[in-house]
Amino acid sequence: MAGSVFGEHFKISTFGESHGPAVGVIVDGVTPGIEIDESYIQVQMDRRKPGQSSVTTPRKEYDKIHILSGVFEGKTTGVPIAIMLYNTDMRPEAYSDIQNSFRPGHADYTYLQKYGIRDHRGSGRASGRETAARVAAGAIARKSLENRGVSVVAYTKEVGGIACKTFDEASIEKNPVRACDPEAAIEMVKKIEHLSSIGDSCGGIVECRIRNVPAGLGEPAFDKLDAELAKAMLSIGAVKGIEFGAGFAAAAMQGSEHNDQMDKSGFLTNNAGGIIGGISTGAEIVFRIAVKPTSSISSPQRTMNIFGEECEIRTEGRHDPCICPRIVPVVEAMACLVIEDHFKRQAALMA
Amino acid sequence: MAGSVFGEHFKISTFGESHGPAVGVIVDGVTPGIEIDESYIQVQMDRRKPGQSSVTTPRKEYDKIHILSGVFEGKTTGVPIAIMLYNTDMRPEAYSDIQNSFRPGHADYTYLQKYGIRDHRGSGRASGRETAARVAAGAIARKSLENRGVSVVAYTKEVGGIACKTFDEASIEKNPVRACDPEAAIEMVKKIEHLSSIGDSCGGIVECRIRNVPAGLGEPAFDKLDAELAKAMLSIGAVKGIEFGAGFAAAAMQGSEHNDQMDKSGFLTNNAGGIIGGISTGAEIVFRIAVKPTSSISSPQRTMNIFGEECEIRTEGRHDPCICPRIVPVVEAMACLVIEDHFKRQAALMA
Amino acid sequence: MAGSVFGEHFKISTFGESHGPAVGVIVDGVTPGIEIDESYIQVQMDRRKPGQSSVTTPRKEYDKIHILSGVFEGKTTGVPIAIMLYNTDMRPEAYSDIQNSFRPGHADYTYLQKYGIRDHRGSGRASGRETAARVAAGAIARKSLENRGVSVVAYTKEVGGIACKTFDEASIEKNPVRACDPEAAIEMVKKIEHLSSIGDSCGGIVECRIRNVPAGLGEPAFDKLDAELAKAMLSIGAVKGIEFGAGFAAAAMQGSEHNDQMDKSGFLTNNAGGIIGGISTGAEIVFRIAVKPTSSISSPQRTMNIFGEECEIRTEGRHDPCICPRIVPVVEAMACLVIEDHFKRQAALMA
Amino acid sequence: MAGSVFGEHFKISTFGESHGPAVGVIVDGVTPGIEIDESYIQVQMDRRKPGQSSVTTPRKEYDKIHILSGVFEGKTTGVPIAIMLYNTDMRPEAYSDIQNSFRPGHADYTYLQKYGIRDHRGSGRASGRETAARVAAGAIARKSLENRGVSVVAYTKEVGGIACKTFDEASIEKNPVRACDPEAAIEMVKKIEHLSSIGDSCGGIVECRIRNVPAGLGEPAFDKLDAELAKAMLSIGAVKGIEFGAGFAAAAMQGSEHNDQMDKSGFLTNNAGGIIGGISTGAEIVFRIAVKPTSSISSPQRTMNIFGEECEIRTEGRHDPCICPRIVPVVEAMACLVIEDHFKRQAALMA
Repeated sequence: MAGSVFGEHFKISTFGESHGPAVGVIVDGVTPGIEIDESYIQVQMDRRKPGQSSVTTPRKEYDKIHILSGVFEGKTTGVPIAIMLYNTDMRPEAYSDIQNSFRPGHADYTYLQKYGIRDHRGSGRASGRETAARVAAGAIARKSLENRGVSVVAYTKEVGGIACKTFDEASIEKNPVRACDPEAAIEMVKKIEHLSSIGDSCGGIVECRIRNVPAGLGEPAFDKLDAELAKAMLSIGAVKGIEFGAGFAAAAMQGSEHNDQMDKSGFLTNNAGGIIGGISTGAEIVFRIAVKPTSSISSPQRTMNIFGEECEIRTEGRHDPCICPRIVPVVEAMACLVIEDHFKRQAALMA
Repeated sequence: MAGSVFGEHFKISTFGESHGPAVGVIVDGVTPGIEIDESYIQVQMDRRKPGQSSVTTPRKEYDKIHILSGVFEGKTTGVPIAIMLYNTDMRPEAYSDIQNSFRPGHADYTYLQKYGIRDHRGSGRASGRETAARVAAGAIARKSLENRGVSVVAYTKEVGGIACKTFDEASIEKNPVRACDPEAAIEMVKKIEHLSSIGDSCGGIVECRIRNVPAGLGEPAFDKLDAELAKAMLSIGAVKGIEFGAGFAAAAMQGSEHNDQMDKSGFLTNNAGGIIGGISTGAEIVFRIAVKPTSSISSPQRTMNIFGEECEIRTEGRHDPCICPRIVPVVEAMACLVIEDHFKRQAALMA
Repeated sequence: MAGSVFGEHFKISTFGESHGPAVGVIVDGVTPGIEIDESYIQVQMDRRKPGQSSVTTPRKEYDKIHILSGVFEGKTTGVPIAIMLYNTDMRPEAYSDIQNSFRPGHADYTYLQKYGIRDHRGSGRASGRETAARVAAGAIARKSLENRGVSVVAYTKEVGGIACKTFDEASIEKNPVRACDPEAAIEMVKKIEHLSSIGDSCGGIVECRIRNVPAGLGEPAFDKLDAELAKAMLSIGAVKGIEFGAGFAAAAMQGSEHNDQMDKSGFLTNNAGGIIGGISTGAEIVFRIAVKPTSSISSPQRTMNIFGEECEIRTEGRHDPCICPRIVPVVEAMACLVIEDHFKRQAALMA
Repeated sequence: MAGSVFGEHFKISTFGESHGPAVGVIVDGVTPGIEIDESYIQVQMDRRKPGQSSVTTPRKEYDKIHILSGVFEGKTTGVPIAIMLYNTDMRPEAYSDIQNSFRPGHADYTYLQKYGIRDHRGSGRASGRETAARVAAGAIARKSLENRGVSVVAYTKEVGGIACKTFDEASIEKNPVRACDPEAAIEMVKKIEHLSSIGDSCGGIVECRIRNVPAGLGEPAFDKLDAELAKAMLSIGAVKGIEFGAGFAAAAMQGSEHNDQMDKSGFLTNNAGGIIGGISTGAEIVFRIAVKPTSSISSPQRTMNIFGEECEIRTEGRHDPCICPRIVPVVEAMACLVIEDHFKRQAALMA
């Protein structure tokens, strides 16, 4: 397969380029009888959409979703749900001056090498806009998980070297960087605005917590729950790393420290991040991802053009100086897709 | 599917528990006409096998492989290659005293929760012995990659807080921890031996470099090359994190630093780790994984038994105090499987 | 997975109900650089669309296709191609009187049993309208196959007991039943019109020939080329059987008759239908499918309603008295999808 | 994938050539806790094994199975079950005289075209011996289906033009052709013995009935239950066609005849063969397959050799003059695999 299908049972197929007519998704394998409507999905779309604040791009993609199938009289019917998002704020001409050069950090060069042909409008299929389809599909998974009592929350943990010092969940959606520490959030905004003003960008760390997943989800060997979450997260454009529980810090720990011991109340610690041997322990699933700085910056950079000549490039246009706040709902969506799929896989195994 | 099949085109299925009669693998989709024999594969098996040095477990599993199909007169025929490894040093009775308790850090608890039934001999399917089958399959992929000019090398980068300071590739297979710095290796061995003597263990970091992968391998959206490598690595039991190129350090970098600029000679830096937009750039692919400390330690730990009672446990037996040196060939094997698969996927796309 | 994804490498995902807003398809894995436009695909859509003649339903679904992605400046780019068909002639109210009864021969009963919920408008997902998406996807595969020199042609071989006696390929698209014998076609039309006038319907046999497939396509064991074609054909709603080459007649033949002997010019006969051991021989691939009589008939039939009561039903509305002429392009489309997929699988194997 | 993996959830991978050391299978996704042992599986193996009677080949492959994993203390554990069958009656030298010629009806030519390399011993991977692995895997599925109350029975319906006139289920396993009519069986044996004596062979028709499948199994669109059964059956070497219920006879029927009407007791007829719209109706699932005459015959045939020369060939050796009696357990095994898989898929959908 060619990479645009994800999931075994709760299975999605996506399509669409940033500057074509639409992006969209088909969601197959959805439990019939789930109550869902466009407004429920739209809430998640609005969390991802551009133009939410001073730290996100001012592009106006309204990301209005249209359900074309699989829902009847407000309930899922069990057949594929297609969701469409028409692109309304395309400016392909804005890219005409860069159509012949490879933007550093972008997939321009690798796509041309792979396909031998290039859709130079925006980033084509490599655009972050592709994640809108994931968020739409993830919202359906999220609704099903809500019915199971599972919650998924992600938030910015660190931006440009500024780390959250507290975990104030209630504040996450109230600050423009979606940080879990409102005071750190203020510093983060300042840093992002400053970098934006000098034509630069920054990266960060996003953390995700999944609660009330029962013990026993995930597969041994290759489809371990953490392996599948890792794939899901690394499949998001700007993500360069992932760690579960103690993560890379485990490398410097001793077994007596890292092992999560138990008593009658359950695990005494959660260094494993809620997954052992690839299977959920019943504890909170916790992971963090490394988000690279936005590649599109307006300061000049050295590059090549398609004619093999060296040149300089500035990526003008409307770009997020830090992608963390908008990647948060994408992380949640991908996590929802993986967990919902594994509920179904476990049901199939035990049937 | 239930998780024991890996790969799209170069596809493997594994089976086997640590204390059953055998472990093994079926490798499907192998290019016909590749010259291969048991001795080529055995070299890789011997790198993974226990009992290689003072820092690995003294168990004597000779890991002698047997090819049962798919090779005729020294060449692959294109049909499935089955490889079998009979277990010869099983001591299931050694596990009888722990059969009713959940060993901290092990999958005992999660397997019982998942399956409702438990094969308590060793770790059953969750044993590291399962990776022997991966190494056998990976050796076939490696042979094909050699024909393509691709090389894959992994090594220990850090153990118990001791980091390599140089990259001396020639020294890797000459020291018992497979570190890339022979001086650091000496310190690492001391540390591991000390921890072992006090009934404890430690983790580490393993790095992998894949060379001569042409630009253009990998898929957009979900099956990005880094996403697939991440899944492959996190599917190895003790791995708790992965990062590509600059990895988590990218979170504190600015776009102007992180972006890999180009001139006529190619990329000027490799912060991306050889993959942009999920597709190989032609530069070296570089990633690091976090390896947790071995869960089996002989110092006492608190846990529960299957009757719901609190108890104390010591995991006696023959265990590696640090799994890094033996995980190195497993990392290489999984990397080979992913890269070989993507060569074939690219061929299918362009056909 | 839930059944709406087809193909390994040339992979399609479909969605849509007959009386929802749209049906559509995402086609993934398409070779980049293929010249294609909407008009090429529209030709195939028009062969499937209703209202072509007196023997097809007068519904006016214009089946106008819209390409939403994956094609740029007249060429495929290698990323997913989404094609949308908006439903323009929906009359859900026409089905209100049958919404509580199970139409004989239709999937009303089985869908309710499967999903526990029912979209009663038309046949929902079980409608023949779903095949429009297949024809659109098949047209892309057909274009690629044309570039390879492969042709796929299907035609009506028998209708209501009237069999073609000649094979006049040029006449197929010139008669309303798409029969390969223009004289038989006249009798077929009479029969269909008569049955239609008395509120009944009839079945038939459709044959398909695939030419210039090189020897060597198909896989041993489970994914034999004939096995995959069989699945593809039986996945079309009204198809109840398939046979290759001599087919069921082989059951009464002797080995000395059935075996296709060879001389320097190739195979002397083609009882195998172009596939031996699941792999193409290089000879023409020939198979026939059994098409059941249209289930929707206006004469009264006994059935049950959803309240468990016996009742009588007449399926009024606009229906094809014989589905053969419209199933022809669907058979061709599915055959194209299978063959194109196996070209790519073979390329992957040999890479 | 390369074709040796079958099933979504109840997933098998097979390997092995007729004259290599072994054939075998890995069965993944088996429900944990099913009571199974080698003797239960051996019963099915013995039904398929050669040398059962005068109408089957006298080769002595004892087909003794060995379970290597996934079963502990008499119960399935939920992890992959590997089953091995060592080849004990190999005579590769018997094939040395035909190693350079293409046997008519065999896959010798197509395999060489596909792979460019050839394992000429027996039929290699294309040998009927490959089906032994299927029967082993099918026995596990059968055991699970028994727990669900589902039964699967196949039998010879017609051989060499001689058709069964009654359906006497109790007699099936008591006559050497596994016919459902003991009187017809006597004629069939005579015919087969006669053809064998003159160096020829014959084909036949095998029918399969699956009982107590609840309404609602199967998927819409591509993975229809009949589509999946069709693929499963056509993946068996000698099968050239399949039909469900009325099958090809439906082509000459009218809708008013073919539609299965209902009353309170259920469907009044079963022309659909137990599947409508790809989903089980709850009625008996009935299908028939066309089995070609055995390709290996000792009378002389024209063919080519690998040097491009015309020649004559006689396929000496130990071959079944009619494969029907031995294909019966293979048909049942494949049917069991498909039905068990769809039970699990339905569980996943509804979870």
